[in-house]
Amino acid sequence: MSPLVDLKCEACRNDEPCVTGAESLDLLKEIPDWRIVQREGVQRLERVYTFPDFAQAIRFTDQVAFLAEEIGHHPAILTEWGRVTVHWWTHKIKGLHPNDFIMAAKTDGIYEIRTDGS
Amino acid sequence: MSPLVDLKCEACRNDEPCVTGAESLDLLKEIPDWRIVQREGVQRLERVYTFPDFAQAIRFTDQVAFLAEEIGHHPAILTEWGRVTVHWWTHKIKGLHPNDFIMAAKTDGIYEIRTDGS
Repeated sequence: MSPLVDLKCEACRNDEPCVTGAESLDLLKEIPDWRIVQREGVQRLERVYTFPDFAQAIRFTDQVAFLAEEIGHHPAILTEWGRVTVHWWTHKIKGLHPNDFIMAAKTDGIYEIRTDGS
Repeated sequence: MSPLVDLKCEACRNDEPCVTGAESLDLLKEIPDWRIVQREGVQRLERVYTFPDFAQAIRFTDQVAFLAEEIGHHPAILTEWGRVTVHWWTHKIKGLHPNDFIMAAKTDGIYEIRTDGS
């Protein structure tokens, strides 16, 4: 699991810059199942997780939502039969902050624990 | 609330036709907050529901997921801070079946009960 998973999200100010292209590429190496996509001109991190049915997909959605509420940083979560797509980005700065990469790593952590059955 | 809310979904066969344009327009009158959108060449019903925060959005998502599991017909649910977008369509026939309009009405029912505070 990426060492990012153990980092804490820092409070993010409106005037903080988004991560640069070079920083993004470095951080993406830590979370290789994620990619950067554009939605309405804003960069987001995206990963699609797969599941054997709807019940396990919604359970994962709930776990990601619980993490989001705990940390106070909220993703977009698309729940479908056998599939959950998660997007992380920082609304305040309309782009990607290191916090988003940390949250992506923590989301992977939830998925890995689930698939380990532990 | 639309009378559709009290109807049961019928088992849907692969060779059943999608609703016609005229049938869609009639059924849409019963669920006026929904619209028909195209996603990858497939017609879906779409409605965006709003909430004061993330916690209430995810609670609604869970309620819609519970209904979906109960009936055995599954939507796509996009959960974001203060907003849930629901899509109903029938995978088997790659389009809209009367069941989707019934599920849309039942989804509205969940939202109305919630906002009534009952």
